[in-house]
Amino acid sequence: MKSDIEIAQESEIRHIKTIAEKLNIAEDDIEMYGKYKAKLPLKFIDENKIKKHHLVLVTAMSPTPAGEGKTTTSIGLTEGLNKIGAQTTVVLREPSLGPVFGIKGGAAGGGYAQVIPMEDINLHFTGDFSAIEKANNLLSALIDNNIHSKSKNLGIDPRTIAWKRVMDMNDRALRDITIGLGGTANGIPRQDGFNITPASEVMAILCMSENFEDLKTRLGNIYVGQTFDKQPIYARDLKAENAMAILLKDAVKPNLVQTMEGNPAIIHGGPFANIAQGTNTILATKMGLSLTDYVVTEAGFGADLGAEKFLDIKCVSGGLKPEAVVLVATIRALRHHGGASKDAYNTPDLEKVKAGFENLKKHIENIKKFGLNPVVAINAFPTDSEEEINLVQERCATLGVKAILAHGFSKGGDGMIELAEAVVEEVSSGANQFTPLYNWELPIKEKIDKIAKEIYGADGVDYTKQALKGLAQLNALGLDKLPICMAKTQKSFSDDDSLIGRPKDFRITVREFEFAAGAGFVIPILGNMMRMPGLPTTPASENMFIDNNGKISGLS
Amino acid sequence: MKSDIEIAQESEIRHIKTIAEKLNIAEDDIEMYGKYKAKLPLKFIDENKIKKHHLVLVTAMSPTPAGEGKTTTSIGLTEGLNKIGAQTTVVLREPSLGPVFGIKGGAAGGGYAQVIPMEDINLHFTGDFSAIEKANNLLSALIDNNIHSKSKNLGIDPRTIAWKRVMDMNDRALRDITIGLGGTANGIPRQDGFNITPASEVMAILCMSENFEDLKTRLGNIYVGQTFDKQPIYARDLKAENAMAILLKDAVKPNLVQTMEGNPAIIHGGPFANIAQGTNTILATKMGLSLTDYVVTEAGFGADLGAEKFLDIKCVSGGLKPEAVVLVATIRALRHHGGASKDAYNTPDLEKVKAGFENLKKHIENIKKFGLNPVVAINAFPTDSEEEINLVQERCATLGVKAILAHGFSKGGDGMIELAEAVVEEVSSGANQFTPLYNWELPIKEKIDKIAKEIYGADGVDYTKQALKGLAQLNALGLDKLPICMAKTQKSFSDDDSLIGRPKDFRITVREFEFAAGAGFVIPILGNMMRMPGLPTTPASENMFIDNNGKISGLS
Repeated sequence: MKSDIEIAQESEIRHIKTIAEKLNIAEDDIEMYGKYKAKLPLKFIDENKIKKHHLVLVTAMSPTPAGEGKTTTSIGLTEGLNKIGAQTTVVLREPSLGPVFGIKGGAAGGGYAQVIPMEDINLHFTGDFSAIEKANNLLSALIDNNIHSKSKNLGIDPRTIAWKRVMDMNDRALRDITIGLGGTANGIPRQDGFNITPASEVMAILCMSENFEDLKTRLGNIYVGQTFDKQPIYARDLKAENAMAILLKDAVKPNLVQTMEGNPAIIHGGPFANIAQGTNTILATKMGLSLTDYVVTEAGFGADLGAEKFLDIKCVSGGLKPEAVVLVATIRALRHHGGASKDAYNTPDLEKVKAGFENLKKHIENIKKFGLNPVVAINAFPTDSEEEINLVQERCATLGVKAILAHGFSKGGDGMIELAEAVVEEVSSGANQFTPLYNWELPIKEKIDKIAKEIYGADGVDYTKQALKGLAQLNALGLDKLPICMAKTQKSFSDDDSLIGRPKDFRITVREFEFAAGAGFVIPILGNMMRMPGLPTTPASENMFIDNNGKISGLS
Repeated sequence: MKSDIEIAQESEIRHIKTIAEKLNIAEDDIEMYGKYKAKLPLKFIDENKIKKHHLVLVTAMSPTPAGEGKTTTSIGLTEGLNKIGAQTTVVLREPSLGPVFGIKGGAAGGGYAQVIPMEDINLHFTGDFSAIEKANNLLSALIDNNIHSKSKNLGIDPRTIAWKRVMDMNDRALRDITIGLGGTANGIPRQDGFNITPASEVMAILCMSENFEDLKTRLGNIYVGQTFDKQPIYARDLKAENAMAILLKDAVKPNLVQTMEGNPAIIHGGPFANIAQGTNTILATKMGLSLTDYVVTEAGFGADLGAEKFLDIKCVSGGLKPEAVVLVATIRALRHHGGASKDAYNTPDLEKVKAGFENLKKHIENIKKFGLNPVVAINAFPTDSEEEINLVQERCATLGVKAILAHGFSKGGDGMIELAEAVVEEVSSGANQFTPLYNWELPIKEKIDKIAKEIYGADGVDYTKQALKGLAQLNALGLDKLPICMAKTQKSFSDDDSLIGRPKDFRITVREFEFAAGAGFVIPILGNMMRMPGLPTTPASENMFIDNNGKISGLS
């Protein structure tokens, strides 16, 4: 079996201007980054076309740690749709460098369903992550500079600073640090830490912004901390928003690349799926919808997290109406949710799949609550047995849902025709009428209650003392009308990793609240959220090689 | 008076492919970054052409804090040379973001002698700085990950780690920090700190590399620290060099932009001029010399630092032979070296200029020691008096040196014709035969002695105990054949800021040694070197503005 990078390097790559031409965009209107990447100016976003065109969300059942292949399915589906004559763009998130050098690898799809040039996409790409990092860290430097200043000090209490520095690297040693040491010239000592760049609120803001003006306003609304008199301090109080926006002047433009079969791919933004919304920029999704009849896009983790946030936060905010949802399942994950141990993931076990189906079933029910009828894509593995597949297809059929074997990884678009046809059928039926789960105007507790009960299947929600204190602060700051961005484990519908399948008779606990006043959401924290991963004992970087002609191997 | 950014924005800008065409490079051979920036593939470097073409170094007398205008003079001279028919490329360093948001502003020239697009050049440009930062910090993460690892631990003593993290930001709070706090999951606590990205050895390495293979070797040679058994650890021991080189695969290619008059400008690399070599990449200089008859380039700070390092480190290492040196002087700096106080810098004072001329005279003498006859460029200011200018010209004439009024800032190429003619005359004379000051094979102390006595005019060199210890380590590590990169104040020929003009009867003290085993030089530290600047009370960022069309103001 060839590695992803070998397949990608052997695939034919077209000049990016030919991809732009397919989209009726002249070479002069794109900003090329080399021959195979380009930025698209925002002027091509056209609200009239967006209304006429069709948005398809790819989400998944509760995943195993390796992930169930949403990106691969999204890319493969895009190839399939284009093959059957539906002009389609895939719109994805940008990979972070942290996992590239750690364990997980990049995020450009896999096998014969990849976006290319995969090396560039997985490395610095067009510099968006670096720009976000700089904008984030400029605000940090301005905060510490203000505290250090004698004459222009706003009276920020260093103990209350909620804004952290970021670096796009897996670097555990930076999680918890003390800065400003070494004497009076080096500022005021305080406890601090670095998050990985996808966890930056600047990333979340870029992904939520409707236009450049909106971006600036949201940057100004970032909450920094309190003064010693307990007055809130925002980034605008430090006059930071223009300089931050200047650093983002190019990052705000969506990036155009191509799939291995030469179809358009827009890759833009990559916020965390736990403490943030986990989906690409509104601008990229709108750009795709302005340029082709169909857009296929994905949202992080399982549907309880990714799809719910995509629908209730991004779609409501951006006025987007998805007309089809693809729910990715794997036989491997079904075995897992039926109780298979990790070393038995690849061994056929009909009983385990039967039991594990409860997880998928709950996700199907959930998608229907949004007025949408999902199509299940069984991301095919060589270790799947026919019996297992048949079982899933039969059970889905009883729920009125198609379950289609998806061979994007091994066959590209040719392996995704049936899925593509099912998606077009769902869209054409007109039966998919998106309705959000909750109204943003509801009180925070009621919004959380709806998600917990209707999506997770919980009996109710408990709040710690700290959470109730946070709730009071949110109300005092006037942030109660924001949507909810749940920070919960992706491994279970509950807040307990070990409750696989479809847990019942459980309550969830909000331990504390965070909020993204600029991006515009409230974040109930249900467990320990990783914001800065570490490297493994043998980092992926050790096995990478680049020859004197710049050809890379060992990148995945 | 219009601001630099206003002048730049009003100037005509050509598509970068037309600049490439001037250099006989086809559009298909460049990698565009938008319409006005491109990367040049290394295949255009041609050693035969380099030998035939002419390298002109722009350096300066000992500067005031504002700088005397080397970049502006280099760009203006390039315009002038092209005007008189000498095909010329200007080859410069890339600006750092730190000063852009701090006090000093960017580094794209000034007035009517600028490189454009100045906003992009001063912001992220083509991402080289970010790539360098990531490569640097990947090594840091690998170091701390190794210390944290139970099974693959190399036994690195955390107290000996010489490798710091970097960030391209003025952020004093990161100078001195404690990392790895918060428990066993977060690594091993140790003292650390961030330098600004231009101070990274990765930057120095990029600038010293001859080709991609050399880059990788140098990255592997980075010295990290010692084991508990006092064995040296290099980046190659952590298998870091390939992954670091992968991150630098595009950064290694020189960047093509244009001057305001449409002449080619190559801007690549930007190492500090104090603890590093302070000049652009060898690859960029060679690229320029491969493409046009003349290359004008500059080196940081005054000639005692910038020119000496350029000539003894870069030219020797890269086999480059400059055929003319332009020594930039200002009447303002001459007044300063004659004893004028800061508030009198702009007031004509013939006596002060007379006294201050001693500084310029010593620099002229120094350049001659390298077999080169400098041309003095008096970077014209409206506050210069005719008497002062006449005096400088007369005194230079007695030394056999032309001193020419340079009006690049106010007139662009039209104001630099006379200087351009003088430079062509020097080159054509064949009299400039570059000889390095010292042989790299000499013992370290002898090399330092030569620089101190012949360039600085010191009576001798003293070494602290710590420096002698460092010297022993250098010899033990076999680094004694490396050239010397002096880390000294730029304000004086001596190691004492207050000794302006041409100090006499002084000795210098090497306090300690550092070394860049990858970049390939030994760094005697003569004073406190700033490696992470801070922001001023009112950061420049506060006065920046960007409108909804992306037009920037307040950037300088």
